Amino acid sequence: VSTPRTTGSARSAPRADQRLVQGAATRHRILARALVLAGSEGLEALTIGKLAEDLGMSKAGLFGHFGSKEDLQLAVVDEARRDFVASVGPALLEPEGLPRLLALCSAWLAWARASEGGCFFASAASEFDGRSGPVRDRVAQSVRDWLDGLTSAVDDARRLGHLEASIDPRQLAFELHSLELGGNACYQLFRDREDLARAERAIAARIEAARAPEKAGAPRRPK
Amino acid sequence: VSTPRTTGSARSAPRADQRLVQGAATRHRILARALVLAGSEGLEALTIGKLAEDLGMSKAGLFGHFGSKEDLQLAVVDEARRDFVASVGPALLEPEGLPRLLALCSAWLAWARASEGGCFFASAASEFDGRSGPVRDRVAQSVRDWLDGLTSAVDDARRLGHLEASIDPRQLAFELHSLELGGNACYQLFRDREDLARAERAIAARIEAARAPEKAGAPRRPK
Repeated sequence: VSTPRTTGSARSAPRADQRLVQGAATRHRILARALVLAGSEGLEALTIGKLAEDLGMSKAGLFGHFGSKEDLQLAVVDEARRDFVASVGPALLEPEGLPRLLALCSAWLAWARASEGGCFFASAASEFDGRSGPVRDRVAQSVRDWLDGLTSAVDDARRLGHLEASIDPRQLAFELHSLELGGNACYQLFRDREDLARAERAIAARIEAARAPEKAGAPRRPK
Repeated sequence: VSTPRTTGSARSAPRADQRLVQGAATRHRILARALVLAGSEGLEALTIGKLAEDLGMSKAGLFGHFGSKEDLQLAVVDEARRDFVASVGPALLEPEGLPRLLALCSAWLAWARASEGGCFFASAASEFDGRSGPVRDRVAQSVRDWLDGLTSAVDDARRLGHLEASIDPRQLAFELHSLELGGNACYQLFRDREDLARAERAIAARIEAARAPEKAGAPRRPK
């Protein structure tokens, strides 16, 4: 394959917007690989030197994208968050109430199953929870945001009469997230998909147990 | 305080059994400190050099106790296991069935709350689940043993008629352990004891939901 040769100064130096696009594409490629490495060895083990070697890039080149190890770690957390939102976001298109709550829990498990090393945030939280600083804070905020989103979904289902009025949305969200975490942790440790199936069954049963009794004239239970 | 001076060769060189006791005491002191360091920074960050510096010992002296970093890591896993058994073991003195199952779950949460960095095995599992080798295997075996013990406790409670005959002991043990893990993970990340209380309430409610209906003449429910 030959590269078409260009003539004229307009192509000899890429225009500023082309350079921006190329820079963003390179940055994305670096972060995608960094996320895989962090998933298998941990976020703290991820250094600019190790990443440069893995990508066949110069350390100086990587420093141009990320000024420090901490900047790199923060960028990886943000990349994981984008990944997570892309995987779990479509669940928000489900109808409000029980369907959306069930879809969110399923999407979390699917994301954890598909990710190298399992749920990035579960691993990073375990790695950084004893530390202080911006990486720990950003990881904690991401987990907090997920728990808040799950709490809202439970509360919506309760408000719509799909779940019993007496339930405590934060308590139920905690329980559902714990079952997600348990499925993720056991699957990563024992490599047995049955643990993810156990989590999925437990989540379905826990939500079923919190269902409001059906009333005459109430909307049909979503399947 | 003056050290009593001894005369005679019998005290000038410690007898072999004294040396053994001293060696074991030193080893125990080293491992107790290693466990605290591993709890806050992770098991992989624990090196013989770092531990020697922390204890004010020579690296050569520590190498006399542990021949390699991996030997040290394995010894720390064993120490954590002894710690765990000492904390959770008394729950096995509770009467078989529901009282023992509830006591085991409470003891796990108390151990996680009291441990620097939370449950050592949850952290070590997250750290080592993507690796291979004897440290990973020993951590995985410890978690497996706990899950098996919990499964037996559930099965005993079922056999004694305290829990419904239809429950799947391994599924219920998975759910109880997930709630333990969720309480531990959220407490470590957010430093809010309410997350441990949420886990405790969820475990009690989950077991309550699995209770067998009382029959006339059946033994009274344990409180």
